[in-house]
Amino acid sequence: MTGTLFVIGTGPGNPDQMTPEALSAVSQATEFFGYGPYLNRLTLRDDQRRQASENREELDRAGAALRAAASGAIVCVVSGGDPGVFAMAAAVCEAIDSGPVEWRDIDLVVLPGITAMLAVAARTGAPLGHDFCAISLSDNLKPWNIIEKRLEGAASAGFVIALYNPISKARPWQLGKAFEVLRAHLPHATPVIFGRAAGRPDERITVQPLAQADAAIADMATCVIIGSAETRVVVRGEKGDLVYTPRFMSGGNR
Amino acid sequence: MTGTLFVIGTGPGNPDQMTPEALSAVSQATEFFGYGPYLNRLTLRDDQRRQASENREELDRAGAALRAAASGAIVCVVSGGDPGVFAMAAAVCEAIDSGPVEWRDIDLVVLPGITAMLAVAARTGAPLGHDFCAISLSDNLKPWNIIEKRLEGAASAGFVIALYNPISKARPWQLGKAFEVLRAHLPHATPVIFGRAAGRPDERITVQPLAQADAAIADMATCVIIGSAETRVVVRGEKGDLVYTPRFMSGGNR
Repeated sequence: MTGTLFVIGTGPGNPDQMTPEALSAVSQATEFFGYGPYLNRLTLRDDQRRQASENREELDRAGAALRAAASGAIVCVVSGGDPGVFAMAAAVCEAIDSGPVEWRDIDLVVLPGITAMLAVAARTGAPLGHDFCAISLSDNLKPWNIIEKRLEGAASAGFVIALYNPISKARPWQLGKAFEVLRAHLPHATPVIFGRAAGRPDERITVQPLAQADAAIADMATCVIIGSAETRVVVRGEKGDLVYTPRFMSGGNR
Repeated sequence: MTGTLFVIGTGPGNPDQMTPEALSAVSQATEFFGYGPYLNRLTLRDDQRRQASENREELDRAGAALRAAASGAIVCVVSGGDPGVFAMAAAVCEAIDSGPVEWRDIDLVVLPGITAMLAVAARTGAPLGHDFCAISLSDNLKPWNIIEKRLEGAASAGFVIALYNPISKARPWQLGKAFEVLRAHLPHATPVIFGRAAGRPDERITVQPLAQADAAIADMATCVIIGSAETRVVVRGEKGDLVYTPRFMSGGNR
């Protein structure tokens, strides 16, 4: 008897940005696993059980969810944003990879969601309008020298850069250091977007030039987007400035 | 009298992957602009007018939509996927940047959507589970030498790579050449995912090792994801293999 394991994303927190597909999975499942604040975004029935865990216990949470699914339950693992971007889908796959062979028979259904960088980009114009990358700034996940190498490689190759996990109490200096690294490769006026809680009531979007970018503006709910040398700002006055990266670079065939 | 310009994304084509927020914009607008196949994804009322245009006429389309909004209409520009990723939001910002100053007063509302790489990733596990980039392979948009430089930079820095616009009748050789470039930087067994029409009835997902990756599998509806050296395959038999990129690299603080 093998159940189903849904892995869903709630989007950045605005209920209108959660897909009908993910909502349907929520209505089907009876056991929910996730970080508490993400589970709090769902409206559950009395017959639906939630098991909240701390933010850094992803692999244990994935194992508990897989055990429940292996015993026949319909289970839902809940991420914020998109479950495949620095989130629970990879933890579930890792747990299957190293877990009992029966877990490979579980019906695993990963459902995409709106990831933070897309929501932040939409609020400012189109900063991700051309080639871009997403980097987790957490050096819990990889050595800092790898992060610096990726920042340098991305900036010098002309990618717009979205930074996830930019800062936390345990990682206070990394974002400032990242700006310092990027200043050696990008124009001083390159726009830096601090997108906090995009689409939620406590949203706060700030745009600063890289030369003055202040890491202290960011918190754990912030996604930071750093433009490329091509990224432009359209000054609009009271409507707020637009930030976009053009679709074309000179020298294309068109 | 200045109207509103919504720029929305339908997601990859499965109606259950379109957000309630985007659907609400569709119900408010009366004038619709977009590439015909994307407009066809919407169910419109008799009082709603659609103006379909060809795929490569983005800037003209953006101008027409802005003129309609400037005259007071509620207008909706429709992209597939997410409007901010290689799509109409950048074209609209470009048109505002170079257009009449009145266009800066238009109420511009960009609403995010599920972009192709997230939908494809969800169907295969979690290939985007760690740092990744998105590159348009169209050399209509930028010179081919820049594309090669970005492919090399991304692969050698350890990013998973999602390729948009991988192939078309006018661009038949670029994807094969991209695989050739990447083979010099990545292990032969690196998984390559061809994700065609993810979430739609005609979906076709194929995974091949980079050494044998066959560009002829891709078409215009395909998003190609190339793993990093860290990306793993979990063999599952009849459930289909899982592809994921682990959250951790050895050497992190945890």
